[in-house]
Amino acid sequence: MNKPKYHIFVCTSSRPNGQQKGFCHTKAAVELVSGFMEEIEERGLGGEVFVSNTGCFGLCEKGPIVVVYPDNVWYGSVTAGDVEAIMDEHIEGGSPVKRLEL
Amino acid sequence: MNKPKYHIFVCTSSRPNGQQKGFCHTKAAVELVSGFMEEIEERGLGGEVFVSNTGCFGLCEKGPIVVVYPDNVWYGSVTAGDVEAIMDEHIEGGSPVKRLEL
Repeated sequence: MNKPKYHIFVCTSSRPNGQQKGFCHTKAAVELVSGFMEEIEERGLGGEVFVSNTGCFGLCEKGPIVVVYPDNVWYGSVTAGDVEAIMDEHIEGGSPVKRLEL
Repeated sequence: MNKPKYHIFVCTSSRPNGQQKGFCHTKAAVELVSGFMEEIEERGLGGEVFVSNTGCFGLCEKGPIVVVYPDNVWYGSVTAGDVEAIMDEHIEGGSPVKRLEL
């Protein structure tokens, strides 16, 4: 299969039972998912960069949480305004955005 | 922060808007999440192995899908009976379970 070069995981507090509660969800993390999706499409990175919403990572007070694998880089307090920086510096530039790292 | 050595992602078809539809969900992927959680606890790996449910990976016909990072190993058609093998061979043994790889 075509594996991603980068896989961006955004906590949207999606519980396995279908409930959606928690801090990241209330902090508009859903906008982050669509923000990353738009940036990936605009930059023509659809085949190599994936984005997925996830359940709670247990770091609610530091949310919204974004994790980038395979780098194992964890970002906290991410806002819609940070999506472009993560795409520019980390996904395309190869260097994590230090000011957002946990 | 305490980063995981392994992070196991299980597609449970959790949509960012709270809906939960799709193949992996109907294929009892939710049981996989609880299965991994139980194995992690029983083996005392709580601090180093994380498990998260996710939204659709777009590989529905091969579901349920389980992805292990940072290894970027993708498993398909995973059943509750495969959880122990993934934990034994991959998470604790360090070698992916070839028969399940996509």
